[in-house]
Amino acid sequence: MKPVFAEIITIGDEILYGQITDTNSAWLGTELGLLGVQVKQISSIADKATDLIEALEEAMNRADLILITGGLGPTRDDITKKTLADYFKCELKLHEPSLADVTELFRSRGREMTEANRQQAFLPESCIPIRNIIGTAPGMWFEHKGKIIVSMPGVPYEMKRMMTDLVLPKIKESFEFPVIIHKVIQTIGIGESFLADQLSEWEDALPENIKLAYLPHLAGVRLRLTGIGSDADELEDQLLKELSTVSNLISKHIFAYGEVSLEETIGMLLLARNMTIATAESCTGGYVAHKLTSIPGSSMYYMGSILAYDNEVKIKQLQVKPETIEQHGAVSEQVVREMAENVRKIIGTDIGIATSGIAGPGGGSEDKPVGTLCIAYSDATKTISKKLFFNKDRELNIEFTTMSLLNLVRQSLP
Amino acid sequence: MKPVFAEIITIGDEILYGQITDTNSAWLGTELGLLGVQVKQISSIADKATDLIEALEEAMNRADLILITGGLGPTRDDITKKTLADYFKCELKLHEPSLADVTELFRSRGREMTEANRQQAFLPESCIPIRNIIGTAPGMWFEHKGKIIVSMPGVPYEMKRMMTDLVLPKIKESFEFPVIIHKVIQTIGIGESFLADQLSEWEDALPENIKLAYLPHLAGVRLRLTGIGSDADELEDQLLKELSTVSNLISKHIFAYGEVSLEETIGMLLLARNMTIATAESCTGGYVAHKLTSIPGSSMYYMGSILAYDNEVKIKQLQVKPETIEQHGAVSEQVVREMAENVRKIIGTDIGIATSGIAGPGGGSEDKPVGTLCIAYSDATKTISKKLFFNKDRELNIEFTTMSLLNLVRQSLP
Repeated sequence: MKPVFAEIITIGDEILYGQITDTNSAWLGTELGLLGVQVKQISSIADKATDLIEALEEAMNRADLILITGGLGPTRDDITKKTLADYFKCELKLHEPSLADVTELFRSRGREMTEANRQQAFLPESCIPIRNIIGTAPGMWFEHKGKIIVSMPGVPYEMKRMMTDLVLPKIKESFEFPVIIHKVIQTIGIGESFLADQLSEWEDALPENIKLAYLPHLAGVRLRLTGIGSDADELEDQLLKELSTVSNLISKHIFAYGEVSLEETIGMLLLARNMTIATAESCTGGYVAHKLTSIPGSSMYYMGSILAYDNEVKIKQLQVKPETIEQHGAVSEQVVREMAENVRKIIGTDIGIATSGIAGPGGGSEDKPVGTLCIAYSDATKTISKKLFFNKDRELNIEFTTMSLLNLVRQSLP
Repeated sequence: MKPVFAEIITIGDEILYGQITDTNSAWLGTELGLLGVQVKQISSIADKATDLIEALEEAMNRADLILITGGLGPTRDDITKKTLADYFKCELKLHEPSLADVTELFRSRGREMTEANRQQAFLPESCIPIRNIIGTAPGMWFEHKGKIIVSMPGVPYEMKRMMTDLVLPKIKESFEFPVIIHKVIQTIGIGESFLADQLSEWEDALPENIKLAYLPHLAGVRLRLTGIGSDADELEDQLLKELSTVSNLISKHIFAYGEVSLEETIGMLLLARNMTIATAESCTGGYVAHKLTSIPGSSMYYMGSILAYDNEVKIKQLQVKPETIEQHGAVSEQVVREMAENVRKIIGTDIGIATSGIAGPGGGSEDKPVGTLCIAYSDATKTISKKLFFNKDRELNIEFTTMSLLNLVRQSLP
């Protein structure tokens, strides 16, 4: 079985000027890797026909599959479609289903379609059009000199949807791949080097066809086991055996297996217990609620929140005792405990959780520096609070507080 | 004056696998752009000598200046230095000042230096070494066939420090540059194609040395004017003239000039008016509050929120009349108006804003499909509500509702 090589070409002056960071390539690299495709090069080029042709020709020499993103918009600086039509020596022709998609998109938004949008449904005759149901630019699939060239929009969510629904399945059919199976273990509350210490003996003894990757993020580390083989069942068995060893080694840090987020995990735990939750947030400013409500169906267990940024709101709406704030300060375990207990009673849920902290950059003091963060969990039988220190920037402090609180929920649920 | 073209090559398997996003290139692109260097291509390649040589040769054909990052570490998969020595046909030789730097670095950290780290001070004879005072790998400056090739570490903070302190000044001396000035105009509430329609006549008449770029995002479009000239004052005048024409053509869609976000703009507008704001969110689940509180100093104007995901919370905490919900449904302009008016009174702020909608994927009906989104703004003298349709995925519906509401605040503030 020959390895399949791919190249990614992202188009846009704004990438070269550094005004946007190309995140499409990393996402595509991951998806292709999961399939067993090896990415050989990523190239970012200008919105210029000659540059695209040069990059394409170089890529055609090296790769079996070339993915292009960007340059498909309705304005004149979007050159991809015209350039590809020239390169593959064919005309642009109206593609009726794409026109129907664009028309429907504008109809559903109650907006009028412009001529420029109508032009987006004209596609090179030699391509297989790829539907875009959430944007105005269809994708294009070309086969040329034994290579596959796919052009997709540069807008990340349109590209991802198109890739997941239509392009990846078609790539899978077009090449012969070895059996590759990935297993993901999600951990939280332990750093990469500590995890590596606990796993090193096991990792050293892994069979040759199984590789381990550490994928650290803010509050945890994703572990990915990748096995390559020829028989799916055998490989699955082999991976499950390793998985169970890892599980035993680091069980208390694992919150999920597979691509499941911590907020999804919390949702499933609450549903399984038929319990409801409410939040009382100060320093996280709604981010805990946002995380919980980002999960479809969260209205089954998430009831609401009182967001008390101002101390007056803590006292009036959350009924925190003024003397608690006076004695211990708004950023204290005492205050955050009252917030969690009270929000549970006020909204009438099974669980109440709360945050109060100094996210920065201002507001710190000698006694309570920026990055002092308090969290609390409360249910019918107990209240648990924690004081954390995590002095990064505002955004990261908010994110870290949120993930730590969700982890506290996971650990504390009855 | 000839334009100076550059290319950037970033080295590392982890970039191609998508395990890290290449952020060095965007930073380098910005720095080079500010200097007047045009980046022609960014290429990311594997830790492989043949791939580096191929990428370098292609870049040498197109560019005057080639910046390489990565592959300078002490491990065997770091191939950059050896490959460049081979390519420039010279030997590695101990560079005493670099050895002194590395030795000092380890001494200051109280750690022992390994042989692999000592090897990092061996550099190709034909290069001008570039000091690295915060890491173990020195940079290298080569001049070859009239081109300049610079190799730097891949660790972002080491690369940035080296670039800022040593490489950029040296690039400035090495070429003659035109003056390049960028101006950014931030718009919201109008799509790219509609904007293009309104600007086409003006765009067609732009002088040759000024280019316009459309940089669309979810709820708006950034416009960037780039001018190239020889005299900074003249070019600035020329750009300001064009800027004022654009401003007149699309004034009501512009919320800021320069790199300012909508939530920052709202913050500045509120501070200028000495006004406070509170939020009442349903479908956005805390995201509006999160956006507003992501701005440092937002506690000056943001007081709090009642997040009423459940209808009971809308009635009990937000005092929405049960009959309004019964008659019009929770997702209605009537309910969202009451939410905005009431939260303003309950929290005691100048402004109250509210959301209610069907973010999906569940919860839609014939009458109110997924993507039906209501927003409202209320102050002492008026309440304004809007019903929007925007059928994307849950995350985007939430984001779109939030940005639309912030735009409504911008338009409605007294």
